[in-house]
Amino acid sequence: MRVAILAHERFPDRAKTAVGVLRYGDQEVVAVLDRETAGTTVGDHLPDVGAEGVPVVERVADAPDFDALLIGIAPIGGGFDESWRDDVRSAIERDADVVSGLHYFLAEDEEFTALAADHGIELRDVRKPPDDLTVAEGIVRGLDVEVILTVGTDCSTGKMTATLELVEAARDAGLNAGFVPTGQTGIMIDGGGIPIDRTISDFTNGATERLIRERADEYDYLFVEGQGSIIHPAYSAVTCGILHGAQPDHLVLCHEAGREAIHGYESFPIPDPADLVELYADLAEPVAPTELLGGSLNTYELDADEAEEAITEYEGSIGAPAVDPVRDGADAIVERLLDDR
Amino acid sequence: MRVAILAHERFPDRAKTAVGVLRYGDQEVVAVLDRETAGTTVGDHLPDVGAEGVPVVERVADAPDFDALLIGIAPIGGGFDESWRDDVRSAIERDADVVSGLHYFLAEDEEFTALAADHGIELRDVRKPPDDLTVAEGIVRGLDVEVILTVGTDCSTGKMTATLELVEAARDAGLNAGFVPTGQTGIMIDGGGIPIDRTISDFTNGATERLIRERADEYDYLFVEGQGSIIHPAYSAVTCGILHGAQPDHLVLCHEAGREAIHGYESFPIPDPADLVELYADLAEPVAPTELLGGSLNTYELDADEAEEAITEYEGSIGAPAVDPVRDGADAIVERLLDDR
Repeated sequence: MRVAILAHERFPDRAKTAVGVLRYGDQEVVAVLDRETAGTTVGDHLPDVGAEGVPVVERVADAPDFDALLIGIAPIGGGFDESWRDDVRSAIERDADVVSGLHYFLAEDEEFTALAADHGIELRDVRKPPDDLTVAEGIVRGLDVEVILTVGTDCSTGKMTATLELVEAARDAGLNAGFVPTGQTGIMIDGGGIPIDRTISDFTNGATERLIRERADEYDYLFVEGQGSIIHPAYSAVTCGILHGAQPDHLVLCHEAGREAIHGYESFPIPDPADLVELYADLAEPVAPTELLGGSLNTYELDADEAEEAITEYEGSIGAPAVDPVRDGADAIVERLLDDR
Repeated sequence: MRVAILAHERFPDRAKTAVGVLRYGDQEVVAVLDRETAGTTVGDHLPDVGAEGVPVVERVADAPDFDALLIGIAPIGGGFDESWRDDVRSAIERDADVVSGLHYFLAEDEEFTALAADHGIELRDVRKPPDDLTVAEGIVRGLDVEVILTVGTDCSTGKMTATLELVEAARDAGLNAGFVPTGQTGIMIDGGGIPIDRTISDFTNGATERLIRERADEYDYLFVEGQGSIIHPAYSAVTCGILHGAQPDHLVLCHEAGREAIHGYESFPIPDPADLVELYADLAEPVAPTELLGGSLNTYELDADEAEEAITEYEGSIGAPAVDPVRDGADAIVERLLDDR
């Protein structure tokens, strides 16, 4: 599938979804839309994503043919920026689908809906879960698949990135590995998945279970993108539903170096990662026992020496191998899966 | 408020909501509708709910004046039984509101909606959460109120009943105590509350927090109705959201005597209650430390001697006083709150 990615005025530093699709997506990206950096190429900004020659253009009219337009940025609040309307309209008129992770649903916009019907294209709002979700049956352990779940000490600790790097490392090692997306960026990168944080709480475990069940025949290893943290004052329900719904055989604990309190909830200190490993394992145990496979440490703010030191310290704390997946990939963690076979 | 309660063919044994409202509700019940036991009185079936002379009638036309019709039964699947349509129609024509906990929303039924508009009455579907829910801010510990949450070893262990009996015992002891309903039966009994199991998982903690915040000024003690169990394969997300959203100072662990596995999920054994106390406390700790106040044991299946024995054994296991709230009330647990003052 050929895609164009809308990232106006935010590419690449504030365009998490756009960069995620470029780095990890199976789609062929033919253009990035950013009126501020138009005239450059993706390679000028991101030399390491395998998209050197892809043009950054001002508007849809300047892009080569594509099958879908992806909204690759998410402003605070998740609203639709009216300055994007011309591009969305042009994309539909070129018979392309439009995929969006915004809170604002394109499929509820009157102009887009009418135009989409005329052109027979799909408006896909990836933040909208399927409407036929049900309660979990608790059957994942009976499926012929090994499940690895990334969990966090907090939100935004790199769970999606760690999960995608684990999939890549597992495939490089010859494993038949699949990605299980649970958030809107992961869904846009993968094309499938369910935004677990938008499901009705009675069905949160069940929605996660469904994602595993749908993929269990196709893969030997499934790497599930975690959400939130089990100690997050606001989002722990999502985390708990994923933990019990996915029934993971292994956990990978994701943390950001130096973060000492829950982001945005600074009066809640993050406990010692070792205590969190124990808490996740104790909570999983009565439903499906699990064990720590490794750790992922986001060392973006550190230089190379500091990062190495932080990773060594983190390994000591959690008692398992750790990586910064962006610096090092995730081979060191996948090796432990190979040892287990 | 004067209410009539619809409980056709199910009163009293399979009419949990009807019996709950009769036993604990502040409403004045003027009639129960059950075409099978019509001609009897509530007292013939339930001598201990203070509604001896209330008639059981065949249809709305036979009932005295009332302000609201409550649907007091919930068939498997939560559908609307068409044999109830005449009664709902008659109630609206008598200018009464209709309150329902069914999955089927009365406010989406064309006939009822049109009729309701004509008569200026409200169709209240208590399974529908408010649409302006938000994420939790983690502020309950800053409010001037003491929070007690019932938690369970499983679903259907008597959490709602225990909570209501705790409120009653606390009021009898002179405490300014309020009930926080989180499920449809509790909501129908109380008139307020949010069905937490129907909230979007990102807002589950926040919806719980909102319930506490709204009542914190009015009461010194709030008793929160728990849901599910933290080890339930399907419903743990709901339980976790309530635990972290409510930030309870105290827990009351509810269990059914003799139950050894999760109901409907028989391959999942229920751990030793003592281990569950520890798990709930460990999970609560990083957000808001809590401690066990007491236990509630459902001994419905046992005779008096067996019940006493089971309660003593349960107390030994959890290391705190326990009651069967239906047999004994909850004074023994509330006394510990008084000791704390």
